[in-house]
Amino acid sequence: MHSFSNLVYGFAGLGIMGGSFAKAIRAKILDSPDAAGKILALDSNTATLATAIERGIIDEAFEPEDTAAMLKRCDVVFICLYPTKTIEFLKKYRGDFKKGAIVSDISGVKTSIMESLPDILHDNIDFICGHPMAGSEKEGFYHSSEHIFEGRNYILTPHHANRRENILFFKRLAGILGFSRITETDYKQHDHKIAFTSQLCHIIASAIVDSAEDEKITAFGGGSFEDLTRIAMINAPLWTELFLANRKELLAHIESFKLSLEKITDLIRRSDSGGLCETLEAVRLKRIEMSTI
Amino acid sequence: MHSFSNLVYGFAGLGIMGGSFAKAIRAKILDSPDAAGKILALDSNTATLATAIERGIIDEAFEPEDTAAMLKRCDVVFICLYPTKTIEFLKKYRGDFKKGAIVSDISGVKTSIMESLPDILHDNIDFICGHPMAGSEKEGFYHSSEHIFEGRNYILTPHHANRRENILFFKRLAGILGFSRITETDYKQHDHKIAFTSQLCHIIASAIVDSAEDEKITAFGGGSFEDLTRIAMINAPLWTELFLANRKELLAHIESFKLSLEKITDLIRRSDSGGLCETLEAVRLKRIEMSTI
Repeated sequence: MHSFSNLVYGFAGLGIMGGSFAKAIRAKILDSPDAAGKILALDSNTATLATAIERGIIDEAFEPEDTAAMLKRCDVVFICLYPTKTIEFLKKYRGDFKKGAIVSDISGVKTSIMESLPDILHDNIDFICGHPMAGSEKEGFYHSSEHIFEGRNYILTPHHANRRENILFFKRLAGILGFSRITETDYKQHDHKIAFTSQLCHIIASAIVDSAEDEKITAFGGGSFEDLTRIAMINAPLWTELFLANRKELLAHIESFKLSLEKITDLIRRSDSGGLCETLEAVRLKRIEMSTI
Repeated sequence: MHSFSNLVYGFAGLGIMGGSFAKAIRAKILDSPDAAGKILALDSNTATLATAIERGIIDEAFEPEDTAAMLKRCDVVFICLYPTKTIEFLKKYRGDFKKGAIVSDISGVKTSIMESLPDILHDNIDFICGHPMAGSEKEGFYHSSEHIFEGRNYILTPHHANRRENILFFKRLAGILGFSRITETDYKQHDHKIAFTSQLCHIIASAIVDSAEDEKITAFGGGSFEDLTRIAMINAPLWTELFLANRKELLAHIESFKLSLEKITDLIRRSDSGGLCETLEAVRLKRIEMSTI
């Protein structure tokens, strides 16, 4: 149905994720000599839009009041906003998309969006709920890059109204943009797993930094502290939303992490050298197995 | 006093650290055309010694029974063994070193070694207690590299018997090998700080992996989980020694980490969006400040 290089791509939000998608589409699809497609984008930051135009990343820029005018021209729309803003946007503009458009989001939590589907879906569009797992502690268009998706995971959480051909189209597009593993899963499963691999890790990194006695501690860093806490340079408003939107799953993982921490701490407390070594060896093997999957 | 390129360097232990030091000395000092120095090494693994000879990293190999014969020829000796083995080695061979030799260790915990000084020191040697902070989840000579020290921290914990000129010599040597920040500090301070930046991080990484429901979780990984748990591919016997040798400091840091974790968890539990965002923002600024030190 679609030829990637002749489509009009639209972006609502041109931060690090929207910017990276736009740059990847430009570099990997629309830079080819016979491409006739375009990239349109809207953002509340006019300086970002000007830069994106100037650098040849987007073809046309729109301010928020022209959202409907942009949407009606786009074949594929990426909504690259915070989770709650994404839901608001879809509710407000559901009737303004081009007929047959494929629309996707980037939210790191899926339940709140999937449970809003009755207020979001529209006959004109196929809304594919997705989570491109290419986070960074950096923010904004300035830090966006066409390379950040390379080798990354992309999780889709399809629903009853999705057309199979559009899901397959979207997966092919994700592959072209660099993602190496594009998985479909149930949205509740997604939020359960993500609460562990992503949110718990951000909480832990933040707690390590919070518990640091002073900022000069890095004179004693050997790489471990730096690696474990890089993500503590966190986008606070975004992650506050993500944590609270997935609160129940996250709290459950924090509790089981605390049990594991307590188990290891207790071995140290009791100077149980044999038990400690055995536990660490089991952890080592488990982590090595994870690397090979 | 010393010209780096004309010295005889000795290694007790040619694992990842000993191997990396030997490779760095070879590449950065002894590969120069006018160098007359040598590298001698002993290891219980004869295959490692054979490889190191064959690859031109070391000049002469010694088996453990020839330790004294090797030591009496070396100007600078790196003891690259586990902490308890390091103390045993120094006690056993303290009288066998060449007069005026500089001897150093690599142990990640300093109190146990520094408190053994009366049994370790000898008029013939200047023992400089040091911690090259260039750890890795990898092990063995096979994974050693002359590059692992680049940009890393090296902590020295001098004592009353050290000669100032030797400390300065050793710091220059460390700089040549690639370390970017070579600090002198009190050994108790070292163990207090290291319990946080290194040991606590290893415990936390291990607890995250321990609490993972299954090994397939990496299909939902976006980089955070991988970065936070790479060090859980831990050398279990070595880290068991390190954790227990620094048990008291480590337990104190675990407790304060748990308080920070509980503080953040409680904000999530109470869905306190304002308080959570404020805490995460403070963490973000603290971590950014750490990066600039």
